[in-house]
Amino acid sequence: MNCKKVTFDDIAQYTNFSKTTISRYFNNPDSLTSKNQEIIAQALIDLNYRQNKVAKILANGRSEFIGVIVPNLYLHYYSEILNQILSSYERFGYKFLVFAGNSNEAIERRCIQELLAYNIEGMIVLSHTISSGELASYGIPIVTIEREDEYTSSVNTDNYMGGVQAASLLGKCHCDILIHINVDVPEAVPAHGRIQGFLDACIEHGLPHELILRDLGDSYAANREALWKIAVYLNEKYEGKRKGIFLANDTYANIFLNRLIRLHGFLPEDYRIIGFDNSPISEEAVIPTSTVGQQIDKIAKTAVEMLVEQISEQKRGKRSGSRKPIHTVITPVLIKRDTTDAAE
Amino acid sequence: MNCKKVTFDDIAQYTNFSKTTISRYFNNPDSLTSKNQEIIAQALIDLNYRQNKVAKILANGRSEFIGVIVPNLYLHYYSEILNQILSSYERFGYKFLVFAGNSNEAIERRCIQELLAYNIEGMIVLSHTISSGELASYGIPIVTIEREDEYTSSVNTDNYMGGVQAASLLGKCHCDILIHINVDVPEAVPAHGRIQGFLDACIEHGLPHELILRDLGDSYAANREALWKIAVYLNEKYEGKRKGIFLANDTYANIFLNRLIRLHGFLPEDYRIIGFDNSPISEEAVIPTSTVGQQIDKIAKTAVEMLVEQISEQKRGKRSGSRKPIHTVITPVLIKRDTTDAAE
Repeated sequence: MNCKKVTFDDIAQYTNFSKTTISRYFNNPDSLTSKNQEIIAQALIDLNYRQNKVAKILANGRSEFIGVIVPNLYLHYYSEILNQILSSYERFGYKFLVFAGNSNEAIERRCIQELLAYNIEGMIVLSHTISSGELASYGIPIVTIEREDEYTSSVNTDNYMGGVQAASLLGKCHCDILIHINVDVPEAVPAHGRIQGFLDACIEHGLPHELILRDLGDSYAANREALWKIAVYLNEKYEGKRKGIFLANDTYANIFLNRLIRLHGFLPEDYRIIGFDNSPISEEAVIPTSTVGQQIDKIAKTAVEMLVEQISEQKRGKRSGSRKPIHTVITPVLIKRDTTDAAE
Repeated sequence: MNCKKVTFDDIAQYTNFSKTTISRYFNNPDSLTSKNQEIIAQALIDLNYRQNKVAKILANGRSEFIGVIVPNLYLHYYSEILNQILSSYERFGYKFLVFAGNSNEAIERRCIQELLAYNIEGMIVLSHTISSGELASYGIPIVTIEREDEYTSSVNTDNYMGGVQAASLLGKCHCDILIHINVDVPEAVPAHGRIQGFLDACIEHGLPHELILRDLGDSYAANREALWKIAVYLNEKYEGKRKGIFLANDTYANIFLNRLIRLHGFLPEDYRIIGFDNSPISEEAVIPTSTVGQQIDKIAKTAVEMLVEQISEQKRGKRSGSRKPIHTVITPVLIKRDTTDAAE
């Protein structure tokens, strides 16, 4: 391995670019064409060049690290948000230290302490474990996504609007009874808005409705068992009536749909179904399923932008503790597929 | 914000633990009970304690960072591997800097240069963009997963065995013709083994078979169009024969299955279907689908262990460049569900 210190002069000479161009590559790479970026990148490899970013952190405090805490990456919602956050690298240059908390409060606290020890410049938190009050007390820029957010700036889907959209679409499908199936989401959690929006829209338009809020289990098998019980109950109670079912997410909607297909071979005329999220399963279901689509790209982009703004405010001397939290909501998009083919 | 430097003495006094206990919390936390870990973690917050890990990197070169390069997190396979890699934090304490390459070679090269500038101790690479020869030339410990790996140590599923398992199961279902649908995977990519294993098993057991290897598109809509064409072709060519279809992944298997259900309302007696991966869609499909299951937890765990071993070898003075690559294969697990209910 070549251990001699490689300088900007060496790189300039090797590539036939000026030293200014080499410097721009490191500080503002997008001011160069991608062709020239590639030439310089290749030269760095050939010359075995290594920047020392660590010394830079000590010198100016800028680690260029952002911490991201997700509950897990098993659920598509979290992995897709992370996917979109990571892709902001090209635009802002921040590097992401990622932790999966797995709902373990002690571990999550320890990993946040570690992140702080590396001088991270900010943090995006999707995990629910630690209260927004505690997060705010760390004194660094923080943005939370779709969780309790009293003391932190946040980006959430407009869940209330999503509930209204779902109820309105089922109403237009001439359903005799509208049903919303969900867990009993606490009011402080943004997703509670789905329940409230559905309820308010039903009341406003005089649509008969029923809320079914109960524990639906934490595994796919448990979800299926709980939802099948509900399906049997609804089928008996509302026999002969057209039932419009709004489920809290696309996984639940898919379970409900699959049961009907297995029983009948097709989606019976007296059922309409809509889910929430627009996760892949809604498109890949045996009958592509209508859903209230979360704009995950926009949520992630907004979260990164808000965080970068907070970071630059802090650099200008504003203390993040003294800032009032800003809560941004992103409107969901109603996606009509084949389970709600309404005549409008 | 309290900016006075907080010492181990302060923490010991505040918690009534000894300084040795506090020191163990930082160097070997699992030697303490989780209760005591929590007490100390809370004290660190109350006292606003911050370690300075950055100075430590400069002092001893140990950043405790591992870089992870994934192609994307949209595909469940990559997000679940990452999920499992991140969960090794509790065991080894490494922090993960994660990049999504999105098949952009120039950006990927730039982000690897940045990772090296932060003194990362090793790298796990799932992305296909950069050759294993180039990766090996970086001179740091590297483990690759399920990609070309001539010059790097790697962990892969035993794809060949998976192809054999799929063909054998379809043979036991008394299929008259076995079909494998895949893209034309190059021989250097581990997944090529699925094709070879299927082919060899068919020949060995004298099972009539057909390989369909072609471009199946890169979006769900394109996959569906390509697979529907193949379904029409197979249905005509092998009318009246029992067809055993082995598809390259569970997404393809689900598309194929859904088409049959939409046409017939049930899975016809002359079709048997098996996918690959054991991704959630195989369980959540309208008919739970048989699959060759990749042991993602084991793959990720093995990759981290191999990397940690390489890192400690390097610390003991062995140069990673001089090591011969080790290729570990993980046996897949055949998961029989309702699309191959064979009498065995």
